[in-house]
Amino acid sequence: MKFEPINFKNKFTKFTEHWSPRVIAEMNDYQFKLVKVASEFVWHSHPQTDEVFIVIEGCLKIEFRDGIVSLETGEMFVIPKGIEHKPSASSECKIMIVEPKGIVNTGDAGSELTAQNDLWI
Amino acid sequence: MKFEPINFKNKFTKFTEHWSPRVIAEMNDYQFKLVKVASEFVWHSHPQTDEVFIVIEGCLKIEFRDGIVSLETGEMFVIPKGIEHKPSASSECKIMIVEPKGIVNTGDAGSELTAQNDLWI
Repeated sequence: MKFEPINFKNKFTKFTEHWSPRVIAEMNDYQFKLVKVASEFVWHSHPQTDEVFIVIEGCLKIEFRDGIVSLETGEMFVIPKGIEHKPSASSECKIMIVEPKGIVNTGDAGSELTAQNDLWI
Repeated sequence: MKFEPINFKNKFTKFTEHWSPRVIAEMNDYQFKLVKVASEFVWHSHPQTDEVFIVIEGCLKIEFRDGIVSLETGEMFVIPKGIEHKPSASSECKIMIVEPKGIVNTGDAGSELTAQNDLWI
């Protein structure tokens, strides 16, 4: 066991790509992933699981078919399983996602934004 | 579905007790819990699951039988399943714990610090 803290700010210096999740930790069969987001993502859902978004720095907007939520630094939201959503950010926002290992970022929507999975930093 | 962000700072105003986890969100069968900690907790382990500590504000020390880790604001650590640990904080520290629903704070160690489970705020 390595007795080293996982530091969000430090980890965010290790990549620049948008919408490309980087794994920083694993808990049982779940992963904690950091993502830099900017501009608009695609509408999609994850039929098999809930998904948690935590804003580490910035502002994240998540649109739903029947509503919208705006998250700021120090706020989180749980996207229920199977619910269509579209994240976006007017300027770069740093977030952490918590979800089961193996979940693809674009869910049920194939897209050029589909990122490689299980990229650790 | 309620389109409301879960705000850590706001949630922390809703309780004062130390070592008494308050649930703020559920993702599948996992819970996100806020805890105010100060002074020393008891040695214990969770034989059935890993456990994640995220420091929202302050400094948290986690002792292990063969090492120690010190976490500051914006840092996290995964306690592996079955590993004995003892959290402590020299002054009040605000943390978030992520673990499966039903996990008791003192794990396998009965103690007067055992808190009521599944307390939502």
